[in-house]
Amino acid sequence: MLDELYMRMALDLAKKGKGWTAPNPLVGAVIVKAGRIIGQGYHEKYGQPHAEVNAIASAKEDVSGATLYVTLEPCSHFGKTPPCSDLLIDKKIKRVVVGTLDPNPLVAGKGIERLRKNGIEVVSGLLEEESQRLNEIFIKYIVTKEPFVVMKNAMSLDGKIATVTGESQWISGEKARKQVHCLRHELSGIMVGVETVIKDDPQLTARIPNSNNPIRIVVDSQLRIPIASTILTDQDKAKTIIATTKRADREKLATLKQMGIEVIMTKEKSGRVNLRELMRTLGAMGIDSILLEGGATLNFSALEENIVDKIQTYIAPKIIGGKNAKTAVEGAGILSLKNAFQINRLTAVMVGEDLFLEGYMDK
Amino acid sequence: MLDELYMRMALDLAKKGKGWTAPNPLVGAVIVKAGRIIGQGYHEKYGQPHAEVNAIASAKEDVSGATLYVTLEPCSHFGKTPPCSDLLIDKKIKRVVVGTLDPNPLVAGKGIERLRKNGIEVVSGLLEEESQRLNEIFIKYIVTKEPFVVMKNAMSLDGKIATVTGESQWISGEKARKQVHCLRHELSGIMVGVETVIKDDPQLTARIPNSNNPIRIVVDSQLRIPIASTILTDQDKAKTIIATTKRADREKLATLKQMGIEVIMTKEKSGRVNLRELMRTLGAMGIDSILLEGGATLNFSALEENIVDKIQTYIAPKIIGGKNAKTAVEGAGILSLKNAFQINRLTAVMVGEDLFLEGYMDK
Repeated sequence: MLDELYMRMALDLAKKGKGWTAPNPLVGAVIVKAGRIIGQGYHEKYGQPHAEVNAIASAKEDVSGATLYVTLEPCSHFGKTPPCSDLLIDKKIKRVVVGTLDPNPLVAGKGIERLRKNGIEVVSGLLEEESQRLNEIFIKYIVTKEPFVVMKNAMSLDGKIATVTGESQWISGEKARKQVHCLRHELSGIMVGVETVIKDDPQLTARIPNSNNPIRIVVDSQLRIPIASTILTDQDKAKTIIATTKRADREKLATLKQMGIEVIMTKEKSGRVNLRELMRTLGAMGIDSILLEGGATLNFSALEENIVDKIQTYIAPKIIGGKNAKTAVEGAGILSLKNAFQINRLTAVMVGEDLFLEGYMDK
Repeated sequence: MLDELYMRMALDLAKKGKGWTAPNPLVGAVIVKAGRIIGQGYHEKYGQPHAEVNAIASAKEDVSGATLYVTLEPCSHFGKTPPCSDLLIDKKIKRVVVGTLDPNPLVAGKGIERLRKNGIEVVSGLLEEESQRLNEIFIKYIVTKEPFVVMKNAMSLDGKIATVTGESQWISGEKARKQVHCLRHELSGIMVGVETVIKDDPQLTARIPNSNNPIRIVVDSQLRIPIASTILTDQDKAKTIIATTKRADREKLATLKQMGIEVIMTKEKSGRVNLRELMRTLGAMGIDSILLEGGATLNFSALEENIVDKIQTYIAPKIIGGKNAKTAVEGAGILSLKNAFQINRLTAVMVGEDLFLEGYMDK
């Protein structure tokens, strides 16, 4: 079916904006007239023109009478740019095919309504699931004002993230690691527990060409982070935020502030940082998505506090063994199987030599 | 390609013998004449006619001039039945298409040679990989005289085989568990560590209709097995063998022998049962294949002793967590990642709600 083909093209175009549009959605648009594609565009960067505007601007011929395929409902309100629905009306677009409605409950359906009232034929919900998945971050964030959290792990086939001696670099292969760097670019934030900083002194940057580094968030209830940590000293590369509690070392707190590091103080939750409160705070700061990269204790707390939306696990084709080798999720653990955290829509695909699993937490 | 189609049919026929032919191979045969299938058969059970004999017997018309597709090279020697190559010659089969050569180095190629010498056109190696995989057990056993060992685990997405309280039934879903029962039927033996017997008192039988129970093997260096264990008291269901060392409790040893339980005494290997010696002994007893069902300590020893050929892991779409929750492979663990046990040809497929991974140990 041709409609589907053009919508897939629009979806592919939308993906080109990954990592640059936050907290705006990813949107792609294709304009077809008399069976030929005469324009295409996508939302390239936050604050810049919407996909529909770019598609129309790219057209080298008159777009009147054409069909416009767009992955997300055209906006009907003034934001950083004028409403796209007005532009489509002005340009005499004849038919609009929409992937999914705007998830913002305040505006959902209004763009389509405006188009229809102005005599434009509208088809809505074509490849809806793909269109929603493309903007799963935006959809959660616009509705809840809290970031979409992706928990990522790399483990051996027997569930270990390190050997008994603590060696963990590298369990997964090069392709898997590169994919993780792409994800770091795509998401607004990256979060780790302080133990990971103490043990690995990581950079937590997206080490691929032409990328955007995520804001680095360290969960550190007592401010045990070493002052010489890379993520504190390389502030030119990316911002670092530390989440702590009133148990924080006062002196360290003063030092960090002097260094220009942002420290978020949350209430305590069983002696730890209150993760739900932290998510609300980070959301209010405009962080729409977070890659949670462990360690095992923080992972369990994040699951317990129900802040995780999606899980991504790389399984390397190797066995490590060891009663004392670390696993991806530790903490206290659930006691009874019936209370296990359930994962929906689990899928698996090979990424290089590793198996890549993806699924969504049951909410 | 038609040849491939018929060979696939022969492979499918061969699989019908799973669980009944040991220590013989699984073999299927299809006879085609003038573009029609006129006969088909498979090796149904140990001691009974070979696939070629059954295929010819099934033919309702003259097989002379026909093509015979057979997954394994026809035999040229007298075993429990006369050589199949002679039968094909007698019956004036015109062309024979073979999946793979006989892995027995003493006879490999001889069947084909005999056919060719008698004017039969032979094509060898069609769907060879599939044909070899079908008989991976037979191929290892005929060459090494040691059983083919499949290590099977069921775990959560974070690598746990039980909760911190020890609850493990059931981590995987119904379809996965049924598949395991099929495997218990297909393999000659099933092996567990004594801890599993003490903790779970399992039956270790194939609980599916019309099945064959595997011989149960318990690795128990000190004979700690409880005398009232189900696998000792239900000897009518299946034979149980206990592998121990000279550290065995003498009194328990006498009791077990009185109960008619076979006890194999191996040398010690770091205070444990010598698994390599055990494999040789079990192989000499005609056990061509073993399903290793844990626990975690025995799994690690089995990998260390290099007795594992294949690994099968079910991953349930749930997270359990817990620093003290059991994982599939424990023991001392490997110290350095470069020494991790490597898995080749890793594949993944959904089985019900679980993900089923399969791979082969690097030998």
